[in-house]
Amino acid sequence: MQRQHFDYHTTFSLNSGDSLPGFSLAYCTWGQMNAEGSNVIWVCHALTGSADVNQWWPGMIGPGKPLDTDRYFIICANVLGGCYGSTGPLDQNPATGKAYYHQFPELNVQDVTRAFDLLRQSLSINAIDLLIGGSLGGQQAVQWAADQPSLIKKLALLATNARHSPWGIAFNETQRMAIEADSSWKTEKAEAGAQGLKAARAIALLSYRTYAIYDEKQQNSQDSQSAMFAAASYQQYQGKKFIGRFNAFTYWILSKMMDSHDVGKNYASTAKALQGIEAKTLVIGIDSDILFPIAEQEFLAQHIPNAHLITLSSPYGHDGFLVEIQAVSEAINELMAFSVEEKKVNSKAAIS
Amino acid sequence: MQRQHFDYHTTFSLNSGDSLPGFSLAYCTWGQMNAEGSNVIWVCHALTGSADVNQWWPGMIGPGKPLDTDRYFIICANVLGGCYGSTGPLDQNPATGKAYYHQFPELNVQDVTRAFDLLRQSLSINAIDLLIGGSLGGQQAVQWAADQPSLIKKLALLATNARHSPWGIAFNETQRMAIEADSSWKTEKAEAGAQGLKAARAIALLSYRTYAIYDEKQQNSQDSQSAMFAAASYQQYQGKKFIGRFNAFTYWILSKMMDSHDVGKNYASTAKALQGIEAKTLVIGIDSDILFPIAEQEFLAQHIPNAHLITLSSPYGHDGFLVEIQAVSEAINELMAFSVEEKKVNSKAAIS
Repeated sequence: MQRQHFDYHTTFSLNSGDSLPGFSLAYCTWGQMNAEGSNVIWVCHALTGSADVNQWWPGMIGPGKPLDTDRYFIICANVLGGCYGSTGPLDQNPATGKAYYHQFPELNVQDVTRAFDLLRQSLSINAIDLLIGGSLGGQQAVQWAADQPSLIKKLALLATNARHSPWGIAFNETQRMAIEADSSWKTEKAEAGAQGLKAARAIALLSYRTYAIYDEKQQNSQDSQSAMFAAASYQQYQGKKFIGRFNAFTYWILSKMMDSHDVGKNYASTAKALQGIEAKTLVIGIDSDILFPIAEQEFLAQHIPNAHLITLSSPYGHDGFLVEIQAVSEAINELMAFSVEEKKVNSKAAIS
Repeated sequence: MQRQHFDYHTTFSLNSGDSLPGFSLAYCTWGQMNAEGSNVIWVCHALTGSADVNQWWPGMIGPGKPLDTDRYFIICANVLGGCYGSTGPLDQNPATGKAYYHQFPELNVQDVTRAFDLLRQSLSINAIDLLIGGSLGGQQAVQWAADQPSLIKKLALLATNARHSPWGIAFNETQRMAIEADSSWKTEKAEAGAQGLKAARAIALLSYRTYAIYDEKQQNSQDSQSAMFAAASYQQYQGKKFIGRFNAFTYWILSKMMDSHDVGKNYASTAKALQGIEAKTLVIGIDSDILFPIAEQEFLAQHIPNAHLITLSSPYGHDGFLVEIQAVSEAINELMAFSVEEKKVNSKAAIS
């Protein structure tokens, strides 16, 4: 794996009308691009992920894995606004000489994909064989595929949607309310709002998981009713762990980004935007996902012309796309094998 | 309706081993008790309710309504630890001469029902024809019916459970994390933790409602994507409204009470406790309830000997028990009519 930076030194206009005076994207790559440039896989990470796919999707990437580093050139960039190396709210604002903090401009999904596309051009990538993402990463993937249909050959959308729901927005706003409840949030410090962020993470976990999985994993023994409950400790522990690796500013920016997601914003409608996608598309939903319920993946599969929907049965809810590696692997392998089969048929035809 | 207070001036031992130096319960009554004392309905309110059933269950109580004030003597007391007139954390601790605040002892459901029972005795109520409660109120009702089986003739348990789930505990802990994120929570003031409580209420709403109902009620028009989203405003509005009528101390105590709920705590098992209930029992669940899912009501109905389960189909989730008045009314009317029919048969037999 190689870690690199892409620096863009020109003013970058945002959809909001605001702009950034350039930006930097941290990205990781695996494997080698072939001579035709036909073996590129681009991975879009979700809300709290990073460019290092190994960190958050172990089992999916490596030699012989669905994201096969022996056969593909694989790239993942940290999202604009992120806190894993790309330009974000804790970076210095050249206009003031200090960190952006609360002044970092609002971003939307299309700002991110336009920034990714500048990185793509700088690497002379002319085709993306597979564009894959889950959740917020899936929102980026579907937006990019709608905006540049001929660029993307295959598209895998996991536990994501075409337009963020009122329910999803309510979950995100509630997390921002927890951050706002922390009076340190108003201060210009990297750790501003950390206690609020801790609670925000705990809220998010509830939307990522299910009753069934808490029942299975966070059960107290019968005699420990009076001690701190396992489920309560778990929320505290996960919140605490999270603030060691994230900041409230990036969380704020990315959750607002998710809220504003509508692939059809610059199209006649959400459905129309999807109808323009040319990629062979695999949509994966998880039957127990309460945050991005299956109806949202049905909508994607219904309107993307060349799409196939797979519903995974899992108790893990939204997190299923990160946890159910075997089922996700099989589905991705099938999508990737499709063109391999096509190529075999083609090469046989050429020989005969 | 009459508003009254019951004052208990003796040390009241709590299940935790701690105690209160007496307590006061605020309660409301409607209608008249008959000579035999056979027409008593006792209502247990939920987490944020009060003794005034009209306030939080309009349509259920009044002349000719399911809780028929013409025919029944109806009573509802504010829960111990509450903030609607009963002794709670903002009341003066006689030992210190100032409010309890963070020193208010932890309570559990059985402490509440034992306090209610002292009020019952003071009013010379020797039988409760119907004991009814939803959510935390249902947890009280099922505990009381298990502890005093011969006292309760009919029991209506709505959107509740026999033992609080890891999932429910995780939701409550997350709400307490939001309160903890508010540094004012540490102060000894009535409004301590109010901003955290605002977020806590917003979290709770998500557990009370559903994707479908947010989709229906909090949809933005297509052209308002860039403004503040309806769903986000709704969360903020509900949070703000709530802190005008509640305090973080009572919220903390009652949510901990809910967490520790297990009707079988002093029995061989949860199921055993339910098996001792003698009341004719109606269990009502809502098919879309994510906080107290239908499996929990199935468990109640399965183990309570004389129980019948009704599953309401509603998009409102847990709040369905407060919103679906018509369906709940029909079910309660049927439960109440049962004994009326029995009596008719009996009186006919006596005449003939």
